[in-house]
Parts: sequence; C-alpha cells; structure tokens
Amino acid sequence: MSTGVTVRVIKVAIVGGTGYTGVELLRLLCGHPQVEIAAITSRTLAGTPVAELFPSLRGHSELVFSEPDVELLAKADLVFFATPHGVAQAQVPELIRRGVRVIDLSADFRLKDIPAWERWYGQLHAAPVLAAESVYGLPEVHRQEIAGAQLVACPGCYPTAIQLGWIPLLEADAIEPIGLIANAASGASGAGRQGKTELLFAENSDNFRAYAAGGHRHLPEIEQGLRNVQPQGSDPASLTFVPHLLPMVRGIHATLYARLKPGQTLESAQALFEERYRDEPFVDVMPPESHPQTRSVRGTNLCRISLHRPQDGDTLVVLSVIDNLAKGASAQALQNMNIMFGWDETLGLESPALLP
Amino acid sequence: MSTGVTVRVIKVAIVGGTGYTGVELLRLLCGHPQVEIAAITSRTLAGTPVAELFPSLRGHSELVFSEPDVELLAKADLVFFATPHGVAQAQVPELIRRGVRVIDLSADFRLKDIPAWERWYGQLHAAPVLAAESVYGLPEVHRQEIAGAQLVACPGCYPTAIQLGWIPLLEADAIEPIGLIANAASGASGAGRQGKTELLFAENSDNFRAYAAGGHRHLPEIEQGLRNVQPQGSDPASLTFVPHLLPMVRGIHATLYARLKPGQTLESAQALFEERYRDEPFVDVMPPESHPQTRSVRGTNLCRISLHRPQDGDTLVVLSVIDNLAKGASAQALQNMNIMFGWDETLGLESPALLP
Amino acid sequence: MSTGVTVRVIKVAIVGGTGYTGVELLRLLCGHPQVEIAAITSRTLAGTPVAELFPSLRGHSELVFSEPDVELLAKADLVFFATPHGVAQAQVPELIRRGVRVIDLSADFRLKDIPAWERWYGQLHAAPVLAAESVYGLPEVHRQEIAGAQLVACPGCYPTAIQLGWIPLLEADAIEPIGLIANAASGASGAGRQGKTELLFAENSDNFRAYAAGGHRHLPEIEQGLRNVQPQGSDPASLTFVPHLLPMVRGIHATLYARLKPGQTLESAQALFEERYRDEPFVDVMPPESHPQTRSVRGTNLCRISLHRPQDGDTLVVLSVIDNLAKGASAQALQNMNIMFGWDETLGLESPALLP
Amino acid sequence: MSTGVTVRVIKVAIVGGTGYTGVELLRLLCGHPQVEIAAITSRTLAGTPVAELFPSLRGHSELVFSEPDVELLAKADLVFFATPHGVAQAQVPELIRRGVRVIDLSADFRLKDIPAWERWYGQLHAAPVLAAESVYGLPEVHRQEIAGAQLVACPGCYPTAIQLGWIPLLEADAIEPIGLIANAASGASGAGRQGKTELLFAENSDNFRAYAAGGHRHLPEIEQGLRNVQPQGSDPASLTFVPHLLPMVRGIHATLYARLKPGQTLESAQALFEERYRDEPFVDVMPPESHPQTRSVRGTNLCRISLHRPQDGDTLVVLSVIDNLAKGASAQALQNMNIMFGWDETLGLESPALLP
Repeated sequence: MSTGVTVRVIKVAIVGGTGYTGVELLRLLCGHPQVEIAAITSRTLAGTPVAELFPSLRGHSELVFSEPDVELLAKADLVFFATPHGVAQAQVPELIRRGVRVIDLSADFRLKDIPAWERWYGQLHAAPVLAAESVYGLPEVHRQEIAGAQLVACPGCYPTAIQLGWIPLLEADAIEPIGLIANAASGASGAGRQGKTELLFAENSDNFRAYAAGGHRHLPEIEQGLRNVQPQGSDPASLTFVPHLLPMVRGIHATLYARLKPGQTLESAQALFEERYRDEPFVDVMPPESHPQTRSVRGTNLCRISLHRPQDGDTLVVLSVIDNLAKGASAQALQNMNIMFGWDETLGLESPALLP
Repeated sequence: MSTGVTVRVIKVAIVGGTGYTGVELLRLLCGHPQVEIAAITSRTLAGTPVAELFPSLRGHSELVFSEPDVELLAKADLVFFATPHGVAQAQVPELIRRGVRVIDLSADFRLKDIPAWERWYGQLHAAPVLAAESVYGLPEVHRQEIAGAQLVACPGCYPTAIQLGWIPLLEADAIEPIGLIANAASGASGAGRQGKTELLFAENSDNFRAYAAGGHRHLPEIEQGLRNVQPQGSDPASLTFVPHLLPMVRGIHATLYARLKPGQTLESAQALFEERYRDEPFVDVMPPESHPQTRSVRGTNLCRISLHRPQDGDTLVVLSVIDNLAKGASAQALQNMNIMFGWDETLGLESPALLP
Repeated sequence: MSTGVTVRVIKVAIVGGTGYTGVELLRLLCGHPQVEIAAITSRTLAGTPVAELFPSLRGHSELVFSEPDVELLAKADLVFFATPHGVAQAQVPELIRRGVRVIDLSADFRLKDIPAWERWYGQLHAAPVLAAESVYGLPEVHRQEIAGAQLVACPGCYPTAIQLGWIPLLEADAIEPIGLIANAASGASGAGRQGKTELLFAENSDNFRAYAAGGHRHLPEIEQGLRNVQPQGSDPASLTFVPHLLPMVRGIHATLYARLKPGQTLESAQALFEERYRDEPFVDVMPPESHPQTRSVRGTNLCRISLHRPQDGDTLVVLSVIDNLAKGASAQALQNMNIMFGWDETLGLESPALLP
Repeated sequence: MSTGVTVRVIKVAIVGGTGYTGVELLRLLCGHPQVEIAAITSRTLAGTPVAELFPSLRGHSELVFSEPDVELLAKADLVFFATPHGVAQAQVPELIRRGVRVIDLSADFRLKDIPAWERWYGQLHAAPVLAAESVYGLPEVHRQEIAGAQLVACPGCYPTAIQLGWIPLLEADAIEPIGLIANAASGASGAGRQGKTELLFAENSDNFRAYAAGGHRHLPEIEQGLRNVQPQGSDPASLTFVPHLLPMVRGIHATLYARLKPGQTLESAQALFEERYRDEPFVDVMPPESHPQTRSVRGTNLCRISLHRPQDGDTLVVLSVIDNLAKGASAQALQNMNIMFGWDETLGLESPALLP
C-alpha cells in the first residue's frame, strides 16, 4: 500500500451526506490515502458534526456539515453528489463551468434519453445538454471515457448488478436479447434513510415482498446499458425487471434469466465471462454452478457472478451479487475517482468483506 | 366457533414430531376442536415431554414423545408423517393395510412418476403402488378425491405457492406453458431444524443467496401439478425454478413469469383468478398491481396472489405468498384432514396472521 | 371452547387503531366469540378499510376507519383506547359519564401520583379525578376491582414483565426492596409505528443499544406497582431500570436483580412463585435455572418466569418474558375485558405461541 | 499509512482457522502491511482452500488449510491459536521451547488460578507453568508486559467489554467492589460456527434469551481482571454476570451497575474515564448520558463507553460496547501483535465501522 512516491492529494466535497450513500462515501474516503475531504454539506444539518449523526465516524472525522455553497464547493477538485434526483442537475452546471469535476451518485445524468428521464421521474430535466455530455460510470464498459470525464454519472445499484451479469453474453450475441427477465432483491439500505413507516424494522423484519413490479425507475437505465454493448443490428435488449425488498441491510442479488442462442452452452458462456472480466479487479467470475452470497461482498466494491444452466435446457441463469451501497453506489464512485485521477483503480478499495 | 352439535372427536398421531412441521402441527392441532392427539413419536427423543423440546407448548400439551410403534399408531384414526423422505414409504403400507388414514407431509408420495422420484431422491421407492393410489393434497385441485382418500400426499411448500399462482392461467390456456420461470424465496425454517453450519444464524442473517439453481427436488412435483390441470392437447408445462434462502424464519414468496397468449390482458387474467378462486377459503386474489407480503400470511393457511403486467408487455408476473410451515405444510395438512373427515374446511385455521 | 350456553355478545369500539397495539387488538378480537367490533376510529385514516392498512386482516375484517365521534363511541359497551398518551384523558370522561366502560392501553390513567405523571410526561393531566378512580389492570393483583371497574388502565409492557417478576418476593418480604435493578430489552414494535429514522430496519438490524438509561417513563409505574404489594412498614421499593432496543419485532425480556433477605434460598423463592401463581392462567413459573425465551410467548398473553441464584450468593436473578404487544398491551386488555364481563378469563387467548 | 521506512515483515501462522475468530483474523491480517500469513491449519479441512470455506476471501487469499504440524508452525515468528479450549495448552509448550511467540485467543492461558480453570472447564490443565508466565493481553492494562511477552493470552469477549467499563472506577476506588452486576448480551457469532440446532437462524431470529445465568465461564476471568487493578487493601471485586444471546451477528453490549462511593458523582466518574483512557487509541469515552450502539464498532477494535447516573441516585450505570469478534477477539489479537513487534499499535486496525 506504500508507493514511496509523493502523490498529489486532492480536495473533495460531498453534497448531501446525510443518507446511507453519504456515510458509506465517508467511511471509504477516510481510508483513501490521496483524498482530503474539504467539505460536506447538508441544508438541514448545517453545524452538526458528522460524527454525531453517524456514530461509527467518532474519532475518524472532525467534519461538520455546512450549508451548500457554490463558492465552497468550487474550491474542491472533485465534488460527489449523494442527493435525491433533481438536486445535482440544478447545481452541477455551475460547478462544471468553474472547472470542477463531478461524480453524481443520483439518477440525474444516467439516462441519455431525456424524454424518458422526464417520464419516469415526473419532472422536466434542468440540464439536458450536460446529461448528453456526461459519462456513464460503469468502469467495466466506459473506463477510457471516465478517465477523461469532467462529469461522471455513477450507475444505480440494480443496474450495476444486472448489467455486469449480462454484458459478456450480449456483447457476444450469445443470448436472445428479447424477453430477458431480471428478478432482483435489495437490502433495506437501498430504500434510504428517511423515516417512513414502510421502512421500519417492525414492518420489514421476517417479511419479504416485491415492489414496483409494474415498472421501476431503474428499468430504462438497465435497458440503455444493455443495448449499448450489443453488436450493431441486434434486436435491442428488452427486459422484465421485478425488484424485491429483503429483510437485511446491505446487498443486492440479481437472478437473471435468458435464453441461450443455438450452439451456446454453459461452458461457452462461462468462457465468455472469464475472458471478458479477466482483467477486471472488481468482477469475480465464480466456478460454474456456484451460488454467490451477498455477504461475500459486504462493504466491498466486488461483483461476484456465477452461471447455471438448469436441466441443460435453453435457459441460462446468471446470479450476480453486489453490495448496494458499495459497488452499487459509493465504492463504485471511488473506483471512478481513482480512474479520473490516474491512480491505481483499487486504491482505498482493497479490504475483504466483513463476514460473518 | 361453537356449533352446539356434538361432533365426533378423532384420535390422531404424529410420526416424527421434532422438526418445524411437527411443532407447527402441534400448535394448530391444539386449537382444533375435533382432534385428540393420541401419540407423537420420535426415535431419538422417546421419553421427553414435547413441551421441553418446544417451550411454546408448555401449558398446552402434556404429550411425551414415544418410540415409533405400529401398534400404537394403528389405534389412531389418522396419522400424520412429518418425517424426512424415505420414512413414510417404509411405514405407511402397514398402516394402510390396517385401515388407518394417513397424511404424509414428506415427499414420499407426491410424485406419480416413480423413476423420476428415484432419480431425484437417489434411492429406490419402497411403495410404488401406494404412491400411485395416493391423492395429492392440494385442495384447490383435488378436493373431492381428498374427501375419500386413505392416503394423502401433502404438497411441498414451493409447489403450493407456485401451482396456485399458475393454475387458473394454465387451465384456461391463457399463457405459454413452455419457458415458465419460477423465482422463489423461502424463510430458513423451510430448511429444517437440523444443526448444520450453513443454517446458523451467523451464516444467514444479513445474507441472501440462491441455492440448487441447477435443479431442485421440487421441480418435478411442480411440473406434474401444472401439467395435470392443462387442457388436453396442450404442450406440457415446463419451467425453470430457482429457489433462494431468505434471512427470515417463515414465508415463501414466488415471483412467476409467463408469456400471455394472444388476446390475454391483465384484466382477463385477473378475471380468471377471481373466478377460479371465488369459493376457495384459503386463496386471496388481491387487486391487480398489489404486492402481497409474506408476513400477511404468517401462521395462516392463506395463499395471497396478485398480478402485474409490466409495461403492458407480453409477460404476466404473478406474485404468490404463503407461510412455508402453514399452507406450505402443516396447516394445509389440517385443511386436508378437515376435508377427509367432513368438517368445515376452515376449522382450526381461522386465526388472522400475526403481524407485526 | 364451546359452552353450549348463549352468551351475550358485546359491542366494542377502538380509538386509535392504526398502531401496533391497534392491529394486535383487532387480531385477537377477531377470534373472540363474545365480541362484535362496532367501530374503529382514526382521525388521519377515516374512510380507509382496516384491511388496507393491515394486510393480515384481509378477509377477516370489513371494518373501515371512522372519524372519532363521541356519539358513535357511546353506543359501544366497551371502548379500547390505543392512543398516544394525552388522548384518552381528554375523551374518556365523557364516555364514563355516559356509562360506557373503558380500557385504556395508554399511560394516561396508570399513575395515581398526578404530579409525578405531569413531571414525566411534561403536560398537565386533564382528568386527575378519573385517574384516582381508575383500576390498574394487572389481573394478577387487581382481579376483583377489575371485575367491577368502569375504567381500567392497562399496564405498560415493561411494567408488566417486571412487576410479575418481583411481586411474590416483595409480598413475602423476601428481598431487599432498595437497590433493585431491572435490566430489560424490548422488540422494536414497542417503539410504535411512526416513521422515524431511528426505527428504520437499516438502523436497527444487527444492532443493540440501551436508551433512556437515565430515566424511562415506565419507572414510576413500576415503583408504584411494586410498593403497592409490599407489606405495611416496608421500605418502599426503589429501582434502577435500564431499557434496551432489540433487533427483533416482538418480545420483552426482563433480567431482574435483587438481594435475598437472610434465610431465603433459591428453593424458598421458587416456592413463593409457584404458590403465588398456582391459579394464574397466564403466568408460567418454569423450573429453577430455566431460561425463558421471548419467542415462547410470541403472540400470547403468557408471562414465563424463571429464577437463578448465581454462585449461591445473595443475588436472586429473575428472568421474565412477555410479548410486549400481547401480555404487554392488547392481550392483557382482552384478559381485563374477560374479567369485566364475567367471561372465562382465557377466552380468545388460548392459542399457543407461534414458534418458530 | 505509508511510513517510507522499510519495516521487517514477519511470518505468522494460524492454528484452527475454520471458526469465526479465524476468518476475522484472516480478514484483518490481509490488510496488515507487516505480516505474511505463512500457514493456517485445520485437521478436518487440510487441503481445502481458505477461500472455499470463506467466500469473502476469494481473491484475497491463496492460502490452503494444512495439517497441524509443529515443524511448520515453528518456522513462524508468531502463531495465533484460534482453537477451542484445551488445544493451545497441549501445543503451545513445544512452540515456546523453540522460541516462537504465541497469541492464544482461547481461554487456556487467561486464568492464573489453575484450580479455578480446572473447575470451570472440567479438565486438568496441561501447562500450568506456562499459564503462570503468560501475559494477559488487555493492552489498556498490560501494555508493557505484552511488549516483551512470548505468550499472550488474549482476553475473552465479555471480559474485555466488562473490564474496560469498570477499570477506571476500581482503580480509583470510586465504586463499591462488592455486588457488581454485569448484564451483557452478545451477537450469535460469539457462540461459534459449529452446527448446533440451538444456534440455527430459525431458532434465534426474533428471539432473545439469557443463558448460563447461574454461572458463565467468563466470570472468573472478569473477577481476576477487576481485582488485579484494585488498590491494595480493597475488598476484592465480586460480581453477578448474566449473559444473553442477541438475534444479531456481531456485537457485545454490557450494561454495568455499581454503587458509587460517597462523594462520587457522574461528573467525577466521567473525569476518571476521560483521564484514564485519554491516550488509548481504542477506547472511546463518549459524552455522559450517551447510548453507544454495537453497530458503531462493528468490525473495529474500538470499545465505546458511556456513563449514566439514573435519578441522581447511588447507582452508576456504565454502557460498554465492542465487536465480539474484533476487540473481543481477533482485532485485539492484532493490537497485541503490534505491541509485541514494536509497530504502531493501530496498524491494520484503522478502518471505521461498517454502518449501516
């Protein structure tokens, strides 16, 4: 971990650090050797020490939440937005003008199709031009553009797990792109830190349910990402996506169903994954017929994947797990930062999962 | 609950009452007005009071586990088998010969295809003729045969949730029977009460994983049940079934994906379900686009079902929830008993779910 | 359960049925043969079917929340208040004037010391005279007064578990009444159904903490109850009480520490408990050195108690468990109702705990 | 984290790495810059890759379990024993003779009173002389002896949380040493990784219970540690200790009750703690009347402590939390290693807790 070389330390700021992606960013940045956290903002908690809100940070951070202030943010080399959708698109344009680099963890800049964004989120988009220029921060697909990007749109949690589980197959035209089914489940931290009855412990413990089965906002992001890697001339990928809420804190598990194209086998599919992700530091292709567990990636930037072909039929089942707050949000943001600033991509992201 | 009429009280016995289906049977039978529990057997715990093993039963039962003994069992009007597979097929034939009625909660008599049973369970079947004569105890399909049956094979937990979620559609030929996908998840009690590291609290809390993705023993039972209700001449139903282990105690949630046949809509499908289950006391067809929760059926014999048609496409999503120990095992066994002895089908099964 | 005798069915109403004690009351009343629920009120949810708020009640109740209205409530034979403190004391006096009987599950009428109430709850008490006349609804102590009471103040959850664990000892002057220590822990349902960040699943899962260690509102209620049973001339009981929040839904576990008076032993203490609770249908004195589990009383009106004397020293440890929503609230309310109306005290409260 | 100075890397070995303290040791050692893990042994799993047993370690460790072999272990600079009691006392003597340093995480060398050890553990002690020479690895008390020790007995989990919560008070003679009460609760990982029915998920979820209320093996260790810090001439500390099992994975919460000596106040007690632990890197004295949460130390070597004085009475309540697998076992072992080898005491132990 010691390079012996003096490395430039950058100043970063976090907008909206009172949610779970905020505290996860802080946890990870505390252990990153090239970063100084210059400011963290919160309209409602300005003046409150971060360690008072998040007792895990007592002794690790002297930061105090401050009012959002563009002058303050503009002094940073990099600003993370960990805000609800709608906030970043209002504030990012000014920062971009001033030359600040931005990683947005919200949904504001993920979709290139602005009318679709406006339909799914029920409001006009405030910065459509920036959305067009932003880079989608899935390093396994866009590493080169990320390196030079000023604005990175960090992928959603479900979209990360699901895209990584199908990309090798779609790139190689090995599965039918029509009729894909993504059945996924998330820990409760994915629903945020707001006080809502439906998120109470007493409502979710010993309970399991689907939600948004008729259509979830992550659907267009997933389809955009899948179509983006298909060979020219392919039928555009389309899928049914049903998310579920798990009685646990962290983790996403995606169970992906696709029909193999003629000639494809479990072995050929496995080979595609191993080849595609050979050099990826954060994608672990497990032996065929493994069953990845969400806890095996808890707190890490890893995505673990395994393949099954039940009854040697024409359905290929891909199991893909991530930590929704880590590879699904804040750790992936750090991975993007490492790429943007030319550092080792794994810097600050080396720790194994906490298990048990 | 009082009828004012003297009703015959029957004597029942339970073989293998040390597991979770055993204690659930005892809990439910304690509240059943027409039943006297004459004996409960356990080879390993003979001599131990039931209330010592299951502290919830202190004050509710004076029963003591006894050695399995055919003479003892033969005195009962009805014997429940709550044993691992392989036990019932060895012991049931003698009881049948003596005129005792039997409800087997294990997998021994569920499959009519004996070679399939032998393949999936890796052993020879000891009573293939009885298996052929037994009645599959899914009351929503076999109520009449159950009434007159001497041997009822109580359905598995996953098969119950999944069959009830597709039967109205397959009977009406409203979905493509090929390429069905059943993604299901179960609470940990479904894996039994044996001390195994993989079932420890510390291994399963805050964790989620698929298992047996390549093929689960419940698959042939589900396919048999689905094919059984299809109209003559249909392509036989075939499915991919992936079970998952939830960090909770009770509950099964099945998320079922099927392609609608031309002309079918969410409304027509909803109508099929409402019509089909109109008089079923234990199937609750919820309004379209609902999301049933497993806790809403905790401890009850209910199956709650809802339908979705994402993006108005050709995929129909059925959500189906049960309590794996109740409608998925012991409460369904009581429902079968009520039918077999001509009582009100809901007797002893009226309590609402424990929520929260 | 059948008496063969026609029993008068009473009409009951519930004020404030949207919380967890409300839904638990509904669950239990649904199974009570002598009760018709005439009305359930909620200011915020008037017009909403109860079964929409609580999916467990679909098919069990056609009730719709109505506006609180004294004319409506006055038609009932009995009104339950399942409201935050402050509500019952404002509304109960008018109902009492009209001859309606009331069981209040809130803290409004538990304390006889009105200045103490006003200090702990930070507001003036609106009905001090009624508070003086009300009967404290702990049947194990006040059964006779409850039978004739018009207004019963149902005990708090912690106070129920703790009082039952010390009453036999204090009545017999077998322990030092000074320096008692009550260390107790509650499931999250005890904190209510309001959407607060601190009660979220993601905040409480895999977490444990004390709260209100400096002083909890249940303290004066507990001390009042303990002093009430002491022999004349005793030093009034005084205790330290530290509550904790458990990562589970239901259950209270009290671990009680007291110093034995000279001459007392584990055996003599055990004999006191067995004698004192011999005829109590809902107190289970377990064998000495047992460890009662909260799940063994889940959903029931039981209190299970065991005694320990570590290292044969002078400290007697009493372990006492209840279900906070059942014996700690709604089931105890039903027990009080049964006594008030002259029915079998166990009516509607016979089911064993749901385990696992 | 980079010192710029070349530091000697030592070889360590782990005996008995298949339990939870084993995997926690591996997780932490993977991130320690001065350590090379030379061997990990397991009689039952020899030949199995560590990453197969613990999926969290895939990609982090190429280690394979090997047969325990004294020649192999003797090549290490330091050997950790993460074994059940009885194993280390049999194997450590030979390693000590060969000059290897040892940190034993089991109970074998914690007690100086060998007859007491033999009474509580029900067997003869195989190495009483070594037990006398070993150093008790609580750095906050024995830092200097640890630095020069060849054999360190790493404290138990409960003893660590409880001792740290009383040491400043006993050293200063500020509380009555007689009649101390330690009410503590542990996550299920503290009970180990063996497949036992009582540790199943389905047995412990939504459940809470005391255990060993009559006497737990950690009691003599706690008393020994407390007496060790008392001023000469004091009455030796004696306590009642009741442990409880929490429905969560990691964390210990101790609620400690003691009577203040005359003249002591909350403020004076708080000052004692702040002074005593001022320079301790892993003890966090929180503001008075705080409530530390177990999750705030999850995965870390921290002990967080707060003080309360309910109703300004004579009882001082100390709340003390640790992670049972970290400060309660493996992280404390690393802290000891850092001291023994003269490194910065926080090396490899800097990460904040994983929260949520």
